[in-house]
This record gives sequence, structure tokens and C-alpha cells, in this order.
Amino acid sequence: MSLKLTILGCGSATPTLDRNPTAQVLQVLERFFLIDCGEGTQLQLRKNKIRPRHFDHIFISHLHGDHYLGLFGLLSSLHLYSRNKPMHVFCPPKLKEIIELQLKASDTRLTYELHFHELEDKDERLILETNEALVFSFPMNHRIPCWGFKFVEKPRPKSMRGEKINEYNIPFSKIDEIRNGSDFTDENGKIISNEELTLPAKETRTYAFCSDTIYDESIIPFVKNVDLLYHESTFAHELIDKATNRYHTTALQAAMFAKKAEAKKLIIGHYSSRYGDITPLLNEARSVFENTIAASDNLVIEIS
Amino acid sequence: MSLKLTILGCGSATPTLDRNPTAQVLQVLERFFLIDCGEGTQLQLRKNKIRPRHFDHIFISHLHGDHYLGLFGLLSSLHLYSRNKPMHVFCPPKLKEIIELQLKASDTRLTYELHFHELEDKDERLILETNEALVFSFPMNHRIPCWGFKFVEKPRPKSMRGEKINEYNIPFSKIDEIRNGSDFTDENGKIISNEELTLPAKETRTYAFCSDTIYDESIIPFVKNVDLLYHESTFAHELIDKATNRYHTTALQAAMFAKKAEAKKLIIGHYSSRYGDITPLLNEARSVFENTIAASDNLVIEIS
Repeated sequence: MSLKLTILGCGSATPTLDRNPTAQVLQVLERFFLIDCGEGTQLQLRKNKIRPRHFDHIFISHLHGDHYLGLFGLLSSLHLYSRNKPMHVFCPPKLKEIIELQLKASDTRLTYELHFHELEDKDERLILETNEALVFSFPMNHRIPCWGFKFVEKPRPKSMRGEKINEYNIPFSKIDEIRNGSDFTDENGKIISNEELTLPAKETRTYAFCSDTIYDESIIPFVKNVDLLYHESTFAHELIDKATNRYHTTALQAAMFAKKAEAKKLIIGHYSSRYGDITPLLNEARSVFENTIAASDNLVIEIS
Repeated sequence: MSLKLTILGCGSATPTLDRNPTAQVLQVLERFFLIDCGEGTQLQLRKNKIRPRHFDHIFISHLHGDHYLGLFGLLSSLHLYSRNKPMHVFCPPKLKEIIELQLKASDTRLTYELHFHELEDKDERLILETNEALVFSFPMNHRIPCWGFKFVEKPRPKSMRGEKINEYNIPFSKIDEIRNGSDFTDENGKIISNEELTLPAKETRTYAFCSDTIYDESIIPFVKNVDLLYHESTFAHELIDKATNRYHTTALQAAMFAKKAEAKKLIIGHYSSRYGDITPLLNEARSVFENTIAASDNLVIEIS
């Protein structure tokens, strides 16, 4: 099993021709999650051949424009496509008011139900459970309230050892129970252990999205040991003062964070528009945390 | 003298990879006007090498997302660039509330003054006078309140006939008066007519932007005889029922409108995303109004 992350935008506040503002798609099995939705997300989805109707859940980290200004256009398009499935948006409290004001101004009654789920807690919180994954929010430390999100793939059932089905004459009706961990009692009352009947389930994967934030080690427990960690890296470390003043992080700090969190892999992004080539940021991060990659628009990463 | 129109977006509600939502830039001398500001306008400005800081005046026709969703991002970027000149936005009343709510949600106090001028009248109204042009608003007929804009180049001073300055010994201090239409009285009290002293001023040009609207001949008086008329043409005429239901216009109707308005030239746009190739819409319009051109993203039209 794998998670698939598509970077739709890796830029920061002022967009450039190469970098759209923040938006990402995480795919877990057939489930698509949209993480942030900067201006231009609709077109980026189209470029990446991801259909907006796949989404039932959208996560907005905070209300700086480069993280949500594409949302109203996307919701409007879904309305024009006559969507009828409910849509769930997990977001800071004020977004509901903004979207509802925009709907009112355009005299639009959506063809589908739109549910807002407010992010409020100061601690890690389970905000969503689907068949495929658990999603947690946790607080970042930015100029305005801001949250990160952790996506934990659910354990998958084990695989049956095919030859054991015949050997113990296991009825079809028992298969699901056994794949979920039960032992089997045959017609003579003999207990066959689950270990004998199954192959181990594949490991589950985790992805954590750390949106805009100052370097803050108190966030580490929320993302400990994740397989893939996205952490903003707006500036190179020589601009540490600017980063700190603006509640942002340097590439070096992102790598320190990943190292202390014992993440398996780090992906950096949210680059300031001052950087054309971001190789210096990548090198800086790799000097501390070797397994770092640099986000770029339309990059696809599989965590398998 | 010329007006220069740059099409930043010629699409309609659902953007495509070839067509951004509505936005245009009209340049009159050194003055830049931004007309509508759909999602992605910032990037389109960048592609067309037009700097956002050139603008002091933005005109928003109505509050369907494809006409204004790029505005907050643009205003935010100007703030990040530390703009200090005031910005004037001419728009439907509710936009002020939307932008102010977004500013509040992002805890942003702009580095510049932002003035909203509400469009309210049901008749033609002079909404702006600069050194270069007069701008009028007038009502369209759409599902929600919507306005069009007419830009009228101001008369330019006449040119002096150089040889007359010596012939009549005209002092430098009198030149401006004469260029603006005065006769000249020489030292002997003889009156020299303005016609003898000057060449006629070049004709002034007009551009009218007819945003989303159903076909409505009551709008014609507001745009009578303009040099260039933009009129939405969302559908081909075979979809006249759909156009009418949605308060939009067909290409054929746009051409009829231009013909009755005695416009010099028509530009059609705001095409439904169902049309890949818009040649049929262009041909349909030209069958009624020969001097029609089709908008496309990044097209530049000079009215000289």
C-alpha cells in the first residue's frame, strides 16, 4: 500500500510563474484529501489530471490568502458541475463566515451540502476517520492561528495464506474475521493460530503537513516518527532574523526539526519568491538531514 | 494617441488551462486601469509584464467569483511590496465587506489606503476623472447586480503650427492657452484665429466593457458609437435558451448589440468552457457584425 502526495503549489505569499501558492493532494487508496487551497488550485488540479469531484474533505491550515484563496472558486465550480455529495472543510473558524458571505454576494445556493469543521484545539485532535485513514490536527506557531495535519493510514487486514483455507476447510464466512486477527477453531475443536493462517499486514504509513510556522520544538511530539514530513522552509538560514520576525522557518531549521522528530523523509517548500533556484535551501537542509527533498509544483511523491 | 487593451482572461465561470477567468488591463497614456480581477490575475499580470504597482484604480463588474476572486491576493501582494499610494476599487457594495473580513481574518493592516467606491446607480454615471480619461459605469442585466464600464479618453491639446510662433512672435507663455483653443492677439491688436495657429487635436477614443449580461438593448445608449466594444458571448446561438436562462448572451446577440450600438469594433469573450475552439462563435458574430475579433488570453489590442 502507498500514500501518494502531489504538490500543486510550493510557493509562498507572492506567487511566481513557477510556483503556485500552497496546495497539496494526498491520496490514500481511493481517497483524496486536499490540503490547503491557494489561488489557482483549480487549474493545478486540472494540470495534474485530478478531478475536483474526488474530494470530500478539504483541510485549510490558516487564513493567510496564499493558503485558501482558491477555495471559493473550487467550491463554485463543484456547484456548477452539479455536485450532490456533501463536502467537508476543516478550517479555522472565520473561513465559514468568509465563504458564506461570498455565497450570499453571488446569490448562490450550492447544489451540495457544505460542512465546516472548525479547528480550535491547542493539542493534537482526531478530526476525521475514513475507511482509509485517520486525520489529526495539531497547532503550529504562526502570526495568526494555524494548524498542521497528520494523516495516518489505517491498518489493512492481513492476507490469508491460500493453502490454509483448504487444509483446515475454512468457510468463506470466516475469512474476514481471520484477516482481522482472529484464530480459527476447526470442526474438531482444534484452535489454529492466526499467525499460522495469515501473512503479516503491510505497514501503515503516515504523512504530516507542517504549514506556516516559526521553528518550534513543541510541535515535534505531534509528528514523531512520521514517514514523510512536509515542513515550510521560507528562507535560507542567513535570513534567520527575517524568518523569526515573520513567524517562518529556515531550511536549516526545518531539517533540525525533521531530525529531532525522527521523520523518515523531509520535504521542504513554501519558498520565498526571492529564491529562483532553491538548491541552496536544499543543500542547507541536507547538511543536517540527509533524506530531504525539495517540493516543486506538480511533483508527485509516493510513500510506499 | 492610442488605448491599449490587454486581455488577461477570456474564460467564464470554470477556468480551463487556456482561459483564465475575466480580467483586462486598459492603458491610456501612462495610466493603467484593471477591469475585473478573476482568480489568477496576479500571475497573468506577471506573464504580461504589467506591474501591479502601476494600478491606482480597479473596476469590478459584479460578485460572481470569476470576476473578483483574484482581488484579495493582488491587494495582499501590494501590501507585501510595501505599497504606499492609495488604491481605489470601484465595485458592488458587498465587496468592501468581503475584503475587510479577509483582511481581519489574516490580521492584516494594509501599508496603503484602500478606498471602495460603490456602484449603485441604475443609469450611466461618471465615477472617475483622471488626467487621461473619464470613466463611466452603467448597469448590465445579469442574475445579480452587475455593471459595465466606459472609458473615454480626454481631449488632448491641439498641436501648434511651429512656423506661426515666429510669424506672429507668440510668447512661450501663451502656447498652452492656444493649444487649448484660444485665439491670439498680437502686439498691434490683431486677432489671429486659433484655426490658423493650430493643427486639429487627434480624435479621442472610447472603450466599453460589457460584462455578464443577458441580451438587453436598453444598454445600447450607454455604449453608442464606442471605438471598441467588449461584449460577453458565453454561448453559440444554438444555445440561446441556456444563455437566456443564465442571464448570458450568445455570440450572435453580441454582434447584434454591437451593430445597433454602431460600435467601430467588437471583441467577444467570456466563453463557456464547453468550447475548445471558438471559431464558430467568431464566425457567428461576424455574420452580423464584420469587424469582430475574438478575445484570447494575453491578446493585446491597440485602438489608435
